Amino acid sequence: MILLDGKKTSGDLKKEIAASVADRISQGKKAPHLAAILVGTDGASMTYVNAKVKACQRVGFDSTLINMPADSSEEKLLQEIDQLNRRKDIDGFIVQLPLPAHIDEQKILMAVDPEKDVDGFHPVNVGKMALNLPCFLPATPFGIMELLERYQVPTSGKQVVVIGRSHIVGRPMSILMSQQRPAGNATVTVAHSRTQNLKALTLQADIIVAALGIPGFLTGDMVKEGVTVVDVGITRLEDPSKKSGYRLSGDVHFESVSKKSSHITPVPGGVGPMTIAMLMKNTLLACKRKDG
Amino acid sequence: MILLDGKKTSGDLKKEIAASVADRISQGKKAPHLAAILVGTDGASMTYVNAKVKACQRVGFDSTLINMPADSSEEKLLQEIDQLNRRKDIDGFIVQLPLPAHIDEQKILMAVDPEKDVDGFHPVNVGKMALNLPCFLPATPFGIMELLERYQVPTSGKQVVVIGRSHIVGRPMSILMSQQRPAGNATVTVAHSRTQNLKALTLQADIIVAALGIPGFLTGDMVKEGVTVVDVGITRLEDPSKKSGYRLSGDVHFESVSKKSSHITPVPGGVGPMTIAMLMKNTLLACKRKDG
Repeated sequence: MILLDGKKTSGDLKKEIAASVADRISQGKKAPHLAAILVGTDGASMTYVNAKVKACQRVGFDSTLINMPADSSEEKLLQEIDQLNRRKDIDGFIVQLPLPAHIDEQKILMAVDPEKDVDGFHPVNVGKMALNLPCFLPATPFGIMELLERYQVPTSGKQVVVIGRSHIVGRPMSILMSQQRPAGNATVTVAHSRTQNLKALTLQADIIVAALGIPGFLTGDMVKEGVTVVDVGITRLEDPSKKSGYRLSGDVHFESVSKKSSHITPVPGGVGPMTIAMLMKNTLLACKRKDG
Repeated sequence: MILLDGKKTSGDLKKEIAASVADRISQGKKAPHLAAILVGTDGASMTYVNAKVKACQRVGFDSTLINMPADSSEEKLLQEIDQLNRRKDIDGFIVQLPLPAHIDEQKILMAVDPEKDVDGFHPVNVGKMALNLPCFLPATPFGIMELLERYQVPTSGKQVVVIGRSHIVGRPMSILMSQQRPAGNATVTVAHSRTQNLKALTLQADIIVAALGIPGFLTGDMVKEGVTVVDVGITRLEDPSKKSGYRLSGDVHFESVSKKSSHITPVPGGVGPMTIAMLMKNTLLACKRKDG
């Protein structure tokens, strides 16, 4: 069993990105600059945004964090986005989700200049992804593709089951893995809440991407010998034995599934660390594009 | 066995559209106006474009056909598109594909105002489709969804195999049928040229969408009893016994497959006639949107 080590791989990636940045600076070019907008003070969102800003600093990026009050109006947020769209020094930016209920999330995502949309959430980037055109891939699927590619997991002609059809993971994964590209060319099935007899599907799968958000959902009896398993789930479960009071659980029952797996991602330390690294990679890409 | 009669259904649709147009006129509103650009004089393309223009006239639309010389420059075509984007009297327009080799097709499709892109080929419309947001669906997939819905073919929880991953049929069909929508909620597998053991997949399928462009590819031994089959293929085969010198063949071997099918589309008279009807429907939609 080979562990698909996202922590190590994201570390490698960050080193490569840092080297690219150092290279740019030595050539007199500007450092990539990522901005993030956070509305409100939700604990998890602050943790994520701060992790992104810290990661930026470590690879030599410039970073800007804009923290708006939780009761900011949609109009005020749109103005902020308009300013970031115009600022020439900023290469890419993200709006941390979820947004407060009084703000129309889709309207906000549509307002981001697609050329600066390093989260890959704007419909034009989603469309370009579906058409296999150059674009910003959403960070989590991009990270999974990178992980599969770097570990040289065979995908061409393989049977893949993606469990979950969310816009940010399940749908893009199912599209990417069936396209003609590295870690692609697979025969992909999308399973979801309406799927009947899921176990019959997963038992046939060479690769399973679990992205449904139910802790420990995929168990050893549901997979075949030699399967590759990518666990996208990350749920906080109460655990009084931990100092933090909780532990993180993936969608995969690691103990039983890993015994039958050829490759498997751990949680934590699998898909999670890749996500921030790919956001950095998209920002570097945005910056390089502007060089002309 | 029930024939999914695209000729009849598209006739019904056109009557409904014509009634909507008559209704608009009686309310003093403008008729929908579809424009088409054809570059060159390719026989098949001219046939298709003329059929679209004629269909417009029959439902009471205004129509404009712009026929440009085959050696028109990309710049000239972009200027033409820019004019159609600006013209307030035109609700939607299409650029007939394929384009001559010296013109960058993707660049042309990107230049069409997404609000007038009634073919649904602009990345922003493709992205909105993938995100299940209101958009112009590409006509052929839209027509298949309409046909399945009108014939009340059960799809929720069913196993669907889409053979083919093209941008205009296979990919959108696989996305639409797995989404939460009428004729959706299916468990969809996308098969393609790299797929191994396709027959094992099709034998399990409740619904098969054949869109690979190989005449007579899907045969009776590849499907199970009670399957629903949608045949998107349409290939001209030489046939000296016909006055035209050719006959049309789908991707499905109708004789053997229909014997085991609960529902099946014929070729011709299945998916084909639906395509033009859905283009009309998109144009009507574009026109209504502008009413505000």
